[in-house]
Amino acid sequence: MIIQKTCTPGMLFSGERFSVTYRIFGSESEARTKAEEICIEQTIEFPADLVAEGAIRDHVLGRIELFERFDQKSLKAVISYAVEIAAGELTQFLNVVFGNTSIKPGIVVEHLDLPLSFLARFRGPRYGRQGTRRLLDIPHRPLLSTAVKPLGLTCRELADLAYQFALGGMDIIKDDHGLTDQCCSPFEERVKRCSEAVARANRETGNKSIYVANITASSLEVKKRARTAKAAGAGGLMVAPGLVGFDLMRELADDEEIDLPIMTHPSFQGSFVTGRGGMSHGVLFGQIARLSGADATIFPNFGGRFSFSREECADIVAGTEVPMGDIKTIFPAPGGGMNLDRVPEMLATYGRDLIFLIGGGLFRHGQDLVENCRSFRKMVESIG
Amino acid sequence: MIIQKTCTPGMLFSGERFSVTYRIFGSESEARTKAEEICIEQTIEFPADLVAEGAIRDHVLGRIELFERFDQKSLKAVISYAVEIAAGELTQFLNVVFGNTSIKPGIVVEHLDLPLSFLARFRGPRYGRQGTRRLLDIPHRPLLSTAVKPLGLTCRELADLAYQFALGGMDIIKDDHGLTDQCCSPFEERVKRCSEAVARANRETGNKSIYVANITASSLEVKKRARTAKAAGAGGLMVAPGLVGFDLMRELADDEEIDLPIMTHPSFQGSFVTGRGGMSHGVLFGQIARLSGADATIFPNFGGRFSFSREECADIVAGTEVPMGDIKTIFPAPGGGMNLDRVPEMLATYGRDLIFLIGGGLFRHGQDLVENCRSFRKMVESIG
Repeated sequence: MIIQKTCTPGMLFSGERFSVTYRIFGSESEARTKAEEICIEQTIEFPADLVAEGAIRDHVLGRIELFERFDQKSLKAVISYAVEIAAGELTQFLNVVFGNTSIKPGIVVEHLDLPLSFLARFRGPRYGRQGTRRLLDIPHRPLLSTAVKPLGLTCRELADLAYQFALGGMDIIKDDHGLTDQCCSPFEERVKRCSEAVARANRETGNKSIYVANITASSLEVKKRARTAKAAGAGGLMVAPGLVGFDLMRELADDEEIDLPIMTHPSFQGSFVTGRGGMSHGVLFGQIARLSGADATIFPNFGGRFSFSREECADIVAGTEVPMGDIKTIFPAPGGGMNLDRVPEMLATYGRDLIFLIGGGLFRHGQDLVENCRSFRKMVESIG
Repeated sequence: MIIQKTCTPGMLFSGERFSVTYRIFGSESEARTKAEEICIEQTIEFPADLVAEGAIRDHVLGRIELFERFDQKSLKAVISYAVEIAAGELTQFLNVVFGNTSIKPGIVVEHLDLPLSFLARFRGPRYGRQGTRRLLDIPHRPLLSTAVKPLGLTCRELADLAYQFALGGMDIIKDDHGLTDQCCSPFEERVKRCSEAVARANRETGNKSIYVANITASSLEVKKRARTAKAAGAGGLMVAPGLVGFDLMRELADDEEIDLPIMTHPSFQGSFVTGRGGMSHGVLFGQIARLSGADATIFPNFGGRFSFSREECADIVAGTEVPMGDIKTIFPAPGGGMNLDRVPEMLATYGRDLIFLIGGGLFRHGQDLVENCRSFRKMVESIG
């Protein structure tokens, strides 16, 4: 039985298409079959032979624009989709890019190529690299960031750490991503004390350090916490879109009243990049983070306690700055298992447009936390 | 420098802990090291040697409760966490279970063991298996479901399909998950026409078929669409938590005004289960789906166009019904590339408590769609 109705007239489609580059593992013929399946799976999800000629075939179906060898083990298929099928929704865009195909092994989303007409639907990061630099009054050098932790300290203790970090010259003092609203350090008290502590240090140093509050929470709470944090004097927000959804981060970034820079945290997103299928580091932590409104993207640095390679980290950097219409470039914020010795190597890889994220390592350098921060900053200033 | 502050007093912790079973690939010593790292990574994310004796070590740190061989290639570690560190938040619970550990390859969340005191914070599915059966007035047999599609049809055409499906005896007629609010079939008109079409068929058949609207959308839109769908007469909602976040689905399920059964769709969740790391099928599509309030969980059936094995599908069934306090059991809804010939084999695997989800296959059986549905229903009624 063929679907041979009048269907949607072709004139509803502008002809504008966005393209997704898939890397497909397997032999050439297997990959070709998989590419053809993607065209269907991500759009009509219906037997193609049952669809009559017309607008659905001409516009709705995915279209293979390029098919060639990627490397010995995989092939590259560039597939385009009508911008209209994403309906201007970030959720539906992600669904078209990788929704059901995420369930098929051996397929990686390598790159997104988005036309201006599509990008115009998205505001992207409010600050981006340049806006964040202006906010912190740091025109050239890399930014320095650290986290208050561990979970289990009281709000007073966390705020005391925040004070010392800011006094030592850290630019961005963020919550650890595991700090939400636990009994040990309730959200409202924590953001109030930490914001005040950083403001106090700023009065002493003359710096413009900011406290960044983790607002990852239930979906009703996220925006409430964003407003609470802003009212308390927080200078930025951190959210884990793997837990709350990418679109909620976009809404935060779009919210005129909230109006704070946003750091995206990779929690619960790892499975997209650790298997032989998923998304490239650059797409997930770069392009999608930008489309979702993050101003800085946190990820595990190469050589730390996670497994990202130097190439994968470079791919993230590429994703943070690849041209995407008016969508601003954003800061890579590599962290995890870092220590001071790695600063030169990182500058060589990332350049100056990065946020150094250093956690436990700051405590190891010596007994005086403020001095440890100062050494870190001096080293970056001297090299960067 | 040791964190030697007063910290949080131990009395803030009840001593109640939830447990996560991790399967860790590698040698015994590698797996042991990884298990110890998980205890830290998922809680304090801070060098353990820098934390003094006291409440943080005693309560906040993860604790290895069991460590033994899983199979030749992997080991099993049961790690417990204080319920308080999840702060009663689904987002933070998922963060503790697998947040940063998702970024480390070769670790799978195999099972969740949650104490009643923890489960009491979650309502879970509003209907579950029994509630959905009562709603549809189908006490024993498997339920029959299909989807209106393909994307590209007009609302009238989709509604006409919905009418035929309902007339043929399909119990649940859902939107394809790619139908959101496209120009071809705008959300509001679609749910109105499809709900009316199913109601009209019900008047003719005496059945209680329902139309289930896909409300996956931007986070502000999801609840709005839920209300619009309910007002239009939809009998259920479908949402893809991979796109909107698990917690938003939980909020939908908890919403007294919305009060409709919810189907969860696996879009954008595949990477959790396709690599050698991630979550087990039973945890992701069973236990987490239930905790997040789904009444039925859609996933690709074994032997279809996806790669799930029969064992993996059986694991999902186990996850939908493993005892979890007052959290109801839910329906497995296997689909994807199904056809009528597979009904007997599926009944043998899943038993009667399942939702058959059949899409394009219904069109292949013969020229008359209503008759095809009737054949499907007859077969299930005769066997089941």
